[in-house]
Order: sequence, then C-alpha cells, then structure tokens
Amino acid sequence: MIKPAVVLLSGGLDSATCLAIARNQGFDCYCLSFNYGQRHSAELKAAERLALAMGACEHRVLNLGLAQFGGSALTDTTIAVPTDGVQPGIPVTYVPARNTIMLALALAWAEVLGSRDIFVGVNAVDYSGYPDCRPDYITAFENMANLATRAGVEGARLSIHAPLIDLGKAEIIRTGAALGVDYGLTVSCYQADALGRACGVCDSCRLRAEGFARAGLADPTAYCA
Amino acid sequence: MIKPAVVLLSGGLDSATCLAIARNQGFDCYCLSFNYGQRHSAELKAAERLALAMGACEHRVLNLGLAQFGGSALTDTTIAVPTDGVQPGIPVTYVPARNTIMLALALAWAEVLGSRDIFVGVNAVDYSGYPDCRPDYITAFENMANLATRAGVEGARLSIHAPLIDLGKAEIIRTGAALGVDYGLTVSCYQADALGRACGVCDSCRLRAEGFARAGLADPTAYCA
Repeated sequence: MIKPAVVLLSGGLDSATCLAIARNQGFDCYCLSFNYGQRHSAELKAAERLALAMGACEHRVLNLGLAQFGGSALTDTTIAVPTDGVQPGIPVTYVPARNTIMLALALAWAEVLGSRDIFVGVNAVDYSGYPDCRPDYITAFENMANLATRAGVEGARLSIHAPLIDLGKAEIIRTGAALGVDYGLTVSCYQADALGRACGVCDSCRLRAEGFARAGLADPTAYCA
Repeated sequence: MIKPAVVLLSGGLDSATCLAIARNQGFDCYCLSFNYGQRHSAELKAAERLALAMGACEHRVLNLGLAQFGGSALTDTTIAVPTDGVQPGIPVTYVPARNTIMLALALAWAEVLGSRDIFVGVNAVDYSGYPDCRPDYITAFENMANLATRAGVEGARLSIHAPLIDLGKAEIIRTGAALGVDYGLTVSCYQADALGRACGVCDSCRLRAEGFARAGLADPTAYCA
C-alpha cells in the first residue's frame, strides 16, 4: 500500500533528518522545497541531491517571491546576517510567516496527492527565538489544516509531523546518522557560497558545528575559508 | 495615525466589497492579489483597477505556482468548469488550500508592515461547499497566526477580518453599493475572457446574477455572448 507524505526539504541538516525519519516510518516521500529569494540558494541544490540520495518519489521546487516583502536578513540583502553568536529573542534571520507559508503549500500538495501526512523539520530547542518553531504553533496549524481541507471535511485526520521539535542538534545528528543520512550533502549556512561552502560564523553554522561536536561525530561541513 | 491592513483582493465582487468595508473602517489598505495559474486572469486586471479606484496604499501581485499541483478546475485545464448550476458538496472549482496559502502570504506582508489586521472576503453562505470559507476555519487560522508571528509572541493581537462571512450575495452587493463600490470594475466569472467578459453559466456567474436580482440592483456585468 502506498503511504504518501509531503516532506518539507530545505536542504539543511534538520530537514534531511526529517526525510530520513519519514522514510523509516514507511512513507513514500514527496519533497517540497522553495526558492523564496533566500541568500543561500546552495541549499536548493543540496535539497535536490538529498531527495535523490534518499529515495524520494518526487522533488518539487516552488518559486515564492518572499523577497518582495523583505523583513528578514535571509530575504533582504540590506539586512546583515548576524555572525557574533546566537542572541536571545527573535533573530533578524526570522522570515515572517515562512513556516506557515511553506506548510500551507505542503497542505495543497498533500490534498492533491491524497496524503494525510506532512513532515516538517522544525525544532524548538535550537530555534527557540522563532515563533513558528514552537509545538503550540504546530498544533494550531494542524487544527486549522483539518478545517481547511477536503480531508478534514470528509472526516480523515491530517497530521503535521514535527519529529525533531523536542530534540537538540546533537540528538538530531545522532538520529539521522543512525538512519544513514549523509550530512555531507546538506547545507545549513545562512550565507553559503555558490558551491555550498559554509561561513562558519552565522547562527546556523554555530549550532551545526556544536551539534557535531556534542554528538561526537565527525563534521563533514565544507567551509569557505 | 496610520492603521495598515492587508486586504486580499481577487478582483471579484466579494473582495471588492471587503476592501470597501476596510476603507470605511479607516484602514490604510495594502492589497494583495495572486497569479496562481487561475484560468480567469482577467480577475487580476480587475484587482488592479479596483485598488486604484478605491484608494489603496499599494497593490501587489504575487506569482504562485499552484497549477503545479493541479487538483482544481480553476488551475487544471484538463478539469472542466461546471456550468450546469450549483451542486451540493465540494465543487471541482475548489482550489486545494487556496485560502490558507493566501492568508499565510498576507500574514507575512502584515508582519513586515507592522499591521495587525488582515481582511478576506470569504463567504460561508454562497460557498458552503468550500471548507476554507467556514467561520470555524477563519477562527482556527487566526489562532494559528497569533502563535506563528512576532506580533503574537510580543502580545499584540492579530485579527483576520471576514466581514462577509455570514452575508448572502444580495446583502454583500447592497453593502458594497452603499459604500460606493463600482461593481462594473469587478470580474467574478471562473472562465472570463481576456477582456473580463463573463460566461454567465458557471457557479460564480450564477450566484452573482442572482445576487443582483435579489438586491434589486442593475447588474453591470459584461457577458461574452
């Protein structure tokens, strides 16, 4: 029996792990990535490599003009990516409503595929400053999704799976490594170069490096310098 | 004091009325339309004319590749638009997760603008077959939005205004007419021609014509035939 799931795949470490978990649970994975004007488009090439390497049924990249709205260091080149270490509060790398937009589009695809399962690699531990990475948010989205769609009306239950939400970076890496994820294929850096090499100093690079160190695993990240 | 609101503006009768209501409530309106591969792109020209005529601060059109997903007569040219009258159940003109996607993008813009108010012209009476036009859905989206965003985290309350939700088409038309909406500028037809002339037989045309008749007002719609 086919068990289709839509998996949001950014090309980073978290979403690659999330895809591995969905595959391990027996889902046929339809991976969705977004070209949303992010600085780090090397991510999208990584997403494509990962989808292929990890046996996805399909990988689609949707264009999304979030740069039109700006408001984030990831989509507005006039706002610098912070490189001085992770600070408390909502970081300027937060992209307004990004997870809501991506989950909404995943929902559309899920509905067309007849899928009741959406996987997203959000994580409340390392990204505590992002409002749309919190468990309450995921629950609220799931409730809304069940009212929004044909599936919900017809009595089927749609699930938003966020298997990494309570894990720290080291636990995520250990989980993925156990499932055979090749983290050398992933790109996490907020300002990676065109070849996907990482800056080493943005928040995302810092959290990633720390994660490998704590997990006691070799860090396969390629750095610019 | 500036009171910015994001108004979803399709170019149809309902969203034009919704814009008039938002303006009448003193909001500075930032209108958002979508090019989502719909058959009836004459709608978008209508949205532009309406935004201009009704004193919007700004009008943006976002490209959105929903045709990639298909699953609706409005985005998939292999599915015919029904012309035999409104039937019970979810119609094939339902676009999977459309309102969720549009509201999510409105939410992103609202967050960047510092707006706490989003207007959407959904209507539960005439579109009872669309799951994402029901009051429960709007409430669930609003709850989710308040968890998703910076505004929500910082204690501000974000509102999704759906002022037409309980109105019949005739009441919508009377409301808009009283506020000076020029319905001759609007396009409702699911398969209007390039000049915005209506087919007269799709569900949307039928509901619109009936609305003008019941409201006792002259119907300014231009028809193809």
